[in-house]
Amino acid sequence: MLLEPSEVDSDGNATLQGRRAEHVAGILGKAPGETLAVGLREGRLGTATVLSSRKTELVLRGCSFDRDPAPKRPITVVLALPRPPVFRRLLQHVTALGVERIVLLHSRRVEKSYWMSPALEPEAIDAQIVLGLEQAVDTVAPIVERARGFKAFVQERLPELSAGARVLVAHPGSHPPCPTDVPGPVVLLVGPEGGFIPYEVDRLLEAGAEAVSLGPRILRVETATLALLGRLGA
Amino acid sequence: MLLEPSEVDSDGNATLQGRRAEHVAGILGKAPGETLAVGLREGRLGTATVLSSRKTELVLRGCSFDRDPAPKRPITVVLALPRPPVFRRLLQHVTALGVERIVLLHSRRVEKSYWMSPALEPEAIDAQIVLGLEQAVDTVAPIVERARGFKAFVQERLPELSAGARVLVAHPGSHPPCPTDVPGPVVLLVGPEGGFIPYEVDRLLEAGAEAVSLGPRILRVETATLALLGRLGA
Repeated sequence: MLLEPSEVDSDGNATLQGRRAEHVAGILGKAPGETLAVGLREGRLGTATVLSSRKTELVLRGCSFDRDPAPKRPITVVLALPRPPVFRRLLQHVTALGVERIVLLHSRRVEKSYWMSPALEPEAIDAQIVLGLEQAVDTVAPIVERARGFKAFVQERLPELSAGARVLVAHPGSHPPCPTDVPGPVVLLVGPEGGFIPYEVDRLLEAGAEAVSLGPRILRVETATLALLGRLGA
Repeated sequence: MLLEPSEVDSDGNATLQGRRAEHVAGILGKAPGETLAVGLREGRLGTATVLSSRKTELVLRGCSFDRDPAPKRPITVVLALPRPPVFRRLLQHVTALGVERIVLLHSRRVEKSYWMSPALEPEAIDAQIVLGLEQAVDTVAPIVERARGFKAFVQERLPELSAGARVLVAHPGSHPPCPTDVPGPVVLLVGPEGGFIPYEVDRLLEAGAEAVSLGPRILRVETATLALLGRLGA
C-alpha cells in the first residue's frame, strides 16, 4: 500500500480514509496488531502495524521504510493513444512492469475523441498508476507525457528520448522479431489499432527506429504491448 | 470475419445475421461490391464480395478460400482460473497469440465461485475465441479443457501434456528468467492472483516443471501471461 510522504508523521503514524482503508478492512481483513507492507510514494518500501482498521478509517503506527523498490526498467513506451478502457488497463500493466516513461502519441488512426476522455485527466492517470505500483510492490511512478502532433514528436522529442537507446517500432509484417532481454535503454513505439500508417512508419524508420514483429498474427494494442515488454526483459 | 462451413453454400454464397452483419455494416462500412477478408472456421483464409450489407443482414458471394492461416504455436497454457472478466480478456489475448491449448485449473487460491461463472459456458468461451481468431486473422480455435482437481491434474493430465515439452511454471522469486524463443512444445503454468501455494509449486517441480520468473515485480495474471507468451516467441 502506497503512502504519501505528507501522510506519515515524524513518529511513523498515519491515518487514512477512502480506498486504502476500505481495501485493508474489506479485502485484506487485517486485524489490529497485524503488519502491513507499505511503500512511501517515490521512496522506499517497509512495513507498518495496524492500530485500527475500519472501512472508513485505517490507523497505522510504526511506519518504517528500509529497502528500495526494484529499479525502473530504462524503457520508454510511446503509445498511440488507445481507446480509454484499454488505456486505463495498459497504464496499470505498464506501470506494474516497471516502465520508466510513457509517451502518449497522436497518429492518423487514433480517434481524436480519445484525447477528450476523462481517463486522461491527471487524477485518473494517477489512480491507475497507483494500482499498478501497489500491485508490483513499487513506489516510483512512470513519467506520463503527451506528445504534441506526430510530426513534432518525431522531429523534436524522439531524438531526445532516443539518445543512447535502441528504438523499436512494432509493426505487423516480415520484420525481424522483437529482440529479447535488451540490456540498455529502449524506446518502444506501439501504433494504434490498425497500425501506424505507411507515412508514419517511414518517418519513424528515417528517425532511426527498427521495425520489429511479434509474428504472423495481427494483435490488439494491449496484447502486443505486453508481449513486447515481456520480450525486452525485466 | 469467420464463417462456419455450414454457412457457405456450394456456390460460395453466404447470408449472415447478428454480430457479423452489424460489424460489417456499422464498423467496417463495406459497400456492395467491396471485398471482405474471410476465414472458414477450422479451415483456410480467403475473400468474399459483399452483395448487400445491412445491420440486420449481410449477403456475401464468391467466398473463396485459398491460403492457410499461420500455424498454431505448440504451447499449452495451464491457467489457474482467473476471475471472469480477466478470463474473458485472456481468452481473446491467448487465442490471438496462437496458443494451441488452454487448460483451466483449480488451485488453492482460485475462488470456487469462479467455476460457476457464465463466462465458462461453452458459448461464452466460443464467443471470446471467435473475437480472438478474427483479430489475429486465424481460423483454428485453441482447445479449451478443464482440469479436474489440482492433484489429479498433476498426476494424470500433466504427464500427457508434457511429453516432449518444456514445462515452465511462472512463479515470483529468484528463479531464472522465462526463456525466450523456445522452439519446441511448451507447457506454461500460470498461477492465480497470489500465486500457487508452496505445496502446489512443489508438486509441479516434482513433476518436472522449471520455475521461471519475470523479474522482481509481482504481476497480475493478465500482465504476466502475455509477457510470458511474448518471451516464448511467435
